[in-house]
Amino acid sequence: MDLLVTYDVDTTSTTGARRLRRVAKICEGHGIRVQKSVFEIVCTEAQRVLLEHQLRETIDLQLDSVRIYPLPIRSLDTVSQIGTGVQAHHRGDQII
Amino acid sequence: MDLLVTYDVDTTSTTGARRLRRVAKICEGHGIRVQKSVFEIVCTEAQRVLLEHQLRETIDLQLDSVRIYPLPIRSLDTVSQIGTGVQAHHRGDQII
Repeated sequence: MDLLVTYDVDTTSTTGARRLRRVAKICEGHGIRVQKSVFEIVCTEAQRVLLEHQLRETIDLQLDSVRIYPLPIRSLDTVSQIGTGVQAHHRGDQII
Repeated sequence: MDLLVTYDVDTTSTTGARRLRRVAKICEGHGIRVQKSVFEIVCTEAQRVLLEHQLRETIDLQLDSVRIYPLPIRSLDTVSQIGTGVQAHHRGDQII
């Protein structure tokens, strides 16, 4: 499955800055960073459950926000990028 | 159509801060802000073309990044929110 994960972590405290680093680290373990707080992830249902669990355990539920958008397969390829966009190659796709 | 718009604007200069405000203002005119730099938008194809044009004219193409994800209709309702999530009610949906 394809997922888009976006997050806002409240960094007005040092513990917030730590949470932000941890959230980024978790997402890096699952997918490709395309913006500061946006990751594209291709994974299985089990991996998605794990990801959601890890994020839930890491953020401050009263201060931070994580959103996980399930997308139809291959729809990550249909993104319109304007500016300094990253074309994330999931599934080992190569343009030759 | 349903869109998810995410952006990173380089705010290391005062002109960057101004671009950030303008990008947010443009997106506010089309949809609902769900995180600092994430908007959910329900619009027509013509509105999407206008949105993309406005964003392209506003950002610094060398410094900033905008990503527009076209989503299947009603898929915005399937987002998993963790933490301080906003349930954006598009199309006047009401949960009673």
